[in-house]
Amino acid sequence: MRFFSDNAASVHPTVMEALSRANVQDTAYDGDALSAQLSGKFSHVFETDVEAMWVATGTAANSLALAAMCQPHQGVVCHKEAHIEQDEAGAPGFYTGGAKLMLLDGEGAKLSADAVESHCVAIRDDVHQVQPAAVSITNATEYGLVYKPDEVAALSSVCKARGLGLHMDGARFANAVASLGCHPADVTWKVGVDVLSFGFVKNGGMGAEALIFFNKDLAAATHYRRKRAGHLQSKGRFLAAQILAMLDDDLWLKNARVANAGAQVLAIASGDRLLHPVEANEIFIKLTAEEAASLRGAGFDFYDWGAGQARLVTSWNQSAEDIKPLAEAIRAL
Amino acid sequence: MRFFSDNAASVHPTVMEALSRANVQDTAYDGDALSAQLSGKFSHVFETDVEAMWVATGTAANSLALAAMCQPHQGVVCHKEAHIEQDEAGAPGFYTGGAKLMLLDGEGAKLSADAVESHCVAIRDDVHQVQPAAVSITNATEYGLVYKPDEVAALSSVCKARGLGLHMDGARFANAVASLGCHPADVTWKVGVDVLSFGFVKNGGMGAEALIFFNKDLAAATHYRRKRAGHLQSKGRFLAAQILAMLDDDLWLKNARVANAGAQVLAIASGDRLLHPVEANEIFIKLTAEEAASLRGAGFDFYDWGAGQARLVTSWNQSAEDIKPLAEAIRAL
Amino acid sequence: MRFFSDNAASVHPTVMEALSRANVQDTAYDGDALSAQLSGKFSHVFETDVEAMWVATGTAANSLALAAMCQPHQGVVCHKEAHIEQDEAGAPGFYTGGAKLMLLDGEGAKLSADAVESHCVAIRDDVHQVQPAAVSITNATEYGLVYKPDEVAALSSVCKARGLGLHMDGARFANAVASLGCHPADVTWKVGVDVLSFGFVKNGGMGAEALIFFNKDLAAATHYRRKRAGHLQSKGRFLAAQILAMLDDDLWLKNARVANAGAQVLAIASGDRLLHPVEANEIFIKLTAEEAASLRGAGFDFYDWGAGQARLVTSWNQSAEDIKPLAEAIRAL
Amino acid sequence: MRFFSDNAASVHPTVMEALSRANVQDTAYDGDALSAQLSGKFSHVFETDVEAMWVATGTAANSLALAAMCQPHQGVVCHKEAHIEQDEAGAPGFYTGGAKLMLLDGEGAKLSADAVESHCVAIRDDVHQVQPAAVSITNATEYGLVYKPDEVAALSSVCKARGLGLHMDGARFANAVASLGCHPADVTWKVGVDVLSFGFVKNGGMGAEALIFFNKDLAAATHYRRKRAGHLQSKGRFLAAQILAMLDDDLWLKNARVANAGAQVLAIASGDRLLHPVEANEIFIKLTAEEAASLRGAGFDFYDWGAGQARLVTSWNQSAEDIKPLAEAIRAL
Repeated sequence: MRFFSDNAASVHPTVMEALSRANVQDTAYDGDALSAQLSGKFSHVFETDVEAMWVATGTAANSLALAAMCQPHQGVVCHKEAHIEQDEAGAPGFYTGGAKLMLLDGEGAKLSADAVESHCVAIRDDVHQVQPAAVSITNATEYGLVYKPDEVAALSSVCKARGLGLHMDGARFANAVASLGCHPADVTWKVGVDVLSFGFVKNGGMGAEALIFFNKDLAAATHYRRKRAGHLQSKGRFLAAQILAMLDDDLWLKNARVANAGAQVLAIASGDRLLHPVEANEIFIKLTAEEAASLRGAGFDFYDWGAGQARLVTSWNQSAEDIKPLAEAIRAL
Repeated sequence: MRFFSDNAASVHPTVMEALSRANVQDTAYDGDALSAQLSGKFSHVFETDVEAMWVATGTAANSLALAAMCQPHQGVVCHKEAHIEQDEAGAPGFYTGGAKLMLLDGEGAKLSADAVESHCVAIRDDVHQVQPAAVSITNATEYGLVYKPDEVAALSSVCKARGLGLHMDGARFANAVASLGCHPADVTWKVGVDVLSFGFVKNGGMGAEALIFFNKDLAAATHYRRKRAGHLQSKGRFLAAQILAMLDDDLWLKNARVANAGAQVLAIASGDRLLHPVEANEIFIKLTAEEAASLRGAGFDFYDWGAGQARLVTSWNQSAEDIKPLAEAIRAL
Repeated sequence: MRFFSDNAASVHPTVMEALSRANVQDTAYDGDALSAQLSGKFSHVFETDVEAMWVATGTAANSLALAAMCQPHQGVVCHKEAHIEQDEAGAPGFYTGGAKLMLLDGEGAKLSADAVESHCVAIRDDVHQVQPAAVSITNATEYGLVYKPDEVAALSSVCKARGLGLHMDGARFANAVASLGCHPADVTWKVGVDVLSFGFVKNGGMGAEALIFFNKDLAAATHYRRKRAGHLQSKGRFLAAQILAMLDDDLWLKNARVANAGAQVLAIASGDRLLHPVEANEIFIKLTAEEAASLRGAGFDFYDWGAGQARLVTSWNQSAEDIKPLAEAIRAL
Repeated sequence: MRFFSDNAASVHPTVMEALSRANVQDTAYDGDALSAQLSGKFSHVFETDVEAMWVATGTAANSLALAAMCQPHQGVVCHKEAHIEQDEAGAPGFYTGGAKLMLLDGEGAKLSADAVESHCVAIRDDVHQVQPAAVSITNATEYGLVYKPDEVAALSSVCKARGLGLHMDGARFANAVASLGCHPADVTWKVGVDVLSFGFVKNGGMGAEALIFFNKDLAAATHYRRKRAGHLQSKGRFLAAQILAMLDDDLWLKNARVANAGAQVLAIASGDRLLHPVEANEIFIKLTAEEAASLRGAGFDFYDWGAGQARLVTSWNQSAEDIKPLAEAIRAL
């Protein structure tokens, strides 16, 4: 019974079937019939004209997005606990050619428009200080909180006023949208997001994420950068197939709803233990070492989040029934 | 009837089955049970202790290998028609931080030990000229020729004398070994290869290549660089599964033998048209524009290789029966 | 009457004379007779065998030092107000190929051994997090404080235990040594410093700093990197000449003592206004906007250091007499 | 009697005097009164509005120019014997973030418009091949030949048609202009040059070159890149002073005329030995090892240029009288 991370869950059967169907010869790289559908399908999903490309990982998606918005001598404003800062081995520095991540605080790993504005104001406008070129936010955040459309809009206002690009790391974008109950457009391009890393791997996919350019001018050079990074797979149709399968019948949303629902069950069971509101599929709770050992002894796997804290993540493939034993075990502590 | 490239062929059924079997939850990244088998399996294949890692593409494998051997201010000697120079969008420059590819001539895209030595001798030993740190060869080459063990050994002697690493781009390593009829060790570590990009995608895989470190000291930092490049997939077990399936029962060799056999059929049919000896699964022939149009009209797809020349590539999934129509069509020109 | 910065002060007459004497034809780059003396002279100054090279700026010296100790996928621990983080336009990211500066707090821009250790302990030892490779400290710090030998030794213990290099940004190294009254060896190699950026430009030089490798293994590749960065000047003898002139008769120490003495005069005059102890040639004081305007109206130039604060810097060419009017003006506020 | 290189010659007395005059306190970096004059003075020299900045070396000037025109995933077309390829330790790769130099042949290290066009035509317009973004030519070339205005115009036509920037490495621009007898505008912006590295160090300067942006849009980011590369010297007024002194009374042209005249004396003396026409201040001659030894025995210093060849370079500080002994010695061989 794993609550360690959604990134190791199984692949949805529909995705597996799509891979089988894709196993016919076609043009290499992204010249195949499936890859050719991506931009159209995502334009339909987002109700605006976008350019979409597949990449294998969220780290690649994020870094390509940042490289599209930020020159090597510039900077990207993000939360100090952002995945791009904490968990990507310096990938943004690699892809941007050495640009600087500018780290801000914020409750629940959320950036506020005020914090971004204050940070930018404090940078001297001279050549000695790195100037920001973009802001990157994660939705849902690393603590499972969700940016609401007006929060993104406020950030975007700051960005527009200062000529900064706005990137959304959507490794758990599906969970965020499911949580908000809004249209995916409402929390992205309609509130000023330029580029979105739309994650599928944590939500039923195998190894394919989508990079969505609402600002299509940023896409052209990314085709070269993706190849240059070794991310233009020759059998790209298998990545496209995964993504298309996830889009069909809104499988991405359905899967996310399951994971989010599971998280709510655990949230209720956790009560006062909760460290953050549970808005997506991650639960952060107070847990002593003894309690953690007890839960593990009962067969539950999860992540220690520093002393006396734990992170539980629910996945698309865990039904309410699957969650129940852990919920009860937490209550019983 | 596609002879355009082996890199768009279908995936071998055994590999597809392995993906299905791998679709159970396991630890993320390369912490899973399948990934854990890679180094052991390849050590067995090569009869020496190696460190192996999966990556999704040959471009990533090659670039990670070069970055392991070459500092940003150094250079890599390769053929001017090498894939790393011609077809990887500058990936080596990206991964190495700006190292220089030093381009040499050589019949059939093969480097000779003499050519490498002459090139190195001509470099002034001062800080104004980029100094080489590694040599990269492709086996089989971009023109379908195969380096024999003694040719690699001669190159390796030059490398060792000058302190250069030796990398083998084995996008079609299986075809080379099948052609040579030797043990894979004979043309790699036994003759001084430090790192091998062992290709599976062109030979029945979906999206997994293996990076083999015979010189295990070079492997440690590569784990970080792989992650930093966004190539550490969270469901890495699916890449490991592909590779392990290809190793089982020597599927990699069997597939390569089929492709090579097909190429021989075309080679015989091509007669005087041949531009290079056919030693693996690529055939380069003289072909006028009219002849090319005629073949295409008959349903054969292939690559124009400059004026009056064409490249035909056979794949693992093309039987002698599948090849015959093209052979006859060429004879009939 | 400028107290804005020591980096715009005039050049010491002895240095100007040395430039005139160097104006005879000699071998280019660093092959000349003067450049050839550098390592020997500095070995004498530090009473140990060092390798020394000139570069034009402190930013180049610092970045070359960090690049010698840190791979692109690694990190450098420094204070969040360090010059390399705040005032070098991302130069460390450029020279290292994208390595990360890991920013710590600390009173007066000083790093403590405990802070470094705590930071390193908190980094997960996996490939997802950037691992540190070096620590960089500034002596005297950006707030004019001085690291004492035992403080450097404590930092060095942490570094040694963790395999980290230790760099000292000595843009005002002369002021630090003058303040400590110790031998320059006592606060560098004897307490574990691997590489020192030894500044001369703020202390009477024109455009030459020295990069001192106590760990000589780190020097070899730096010769290439210096050239690759466009910092190997063809008339390098003029840089060597400046540095040698500064070393002769301990001019570097004499100049620093003058600047430090001037700072003490201002420190005493500032009394309760002082924001930090004055240990070198920088004084940070509380100063209202009105007071600042008043001083400027009287002809004193200095740097606003955020709201209600100012930075005053004394220079080698300001005698006690030159300082007195400002001291009195501060007292009179 | 040195004919080894002009880059180690003495500094012109007028430049030395300018340094003395500049030795008064002024604002740091390029905020001083002298630096502020540069763009105006060069706009006057070139009779068009330019943006000019100082840097210490030609390598830095060239690399900053290329970085302004070429993204990391693109390429720069140049001659295979260009200084940027042969003698700058890979600096363009460093500054551009790994862009590729695309090496062409051409008599006397000159690029022809046809060669550039042919090269570009042969690049597949796909993401697998690096696409060119700029062309870099050297005037005078590495073999002392001079591009005439119509030759530059022809190259520029190709560049404009393909959207490529055009850079001129003018390490010996003064010698080229002196040789052409044209206005400096005639061989630069009037024929499509976007950025010029205007060299002074080989022509009487100490350590200052000028980067001239005819295309001023390219200049903005270069201010950041110059700082980031550690090339924004804090006492920049001393670099500006050198350049301004060289511009006054056309000292740059006068010095170049002296060097060129000396080269003509040697050219006439060399007769059939000449390997290239002598159009600037470099002379390449056939010379046996015995002859070389004989000349050296007589006190003449020069560069061996491969087997049986030598390079002689004349400098601004060598009068006809100074040249005569070598001319006679060559005749006497």
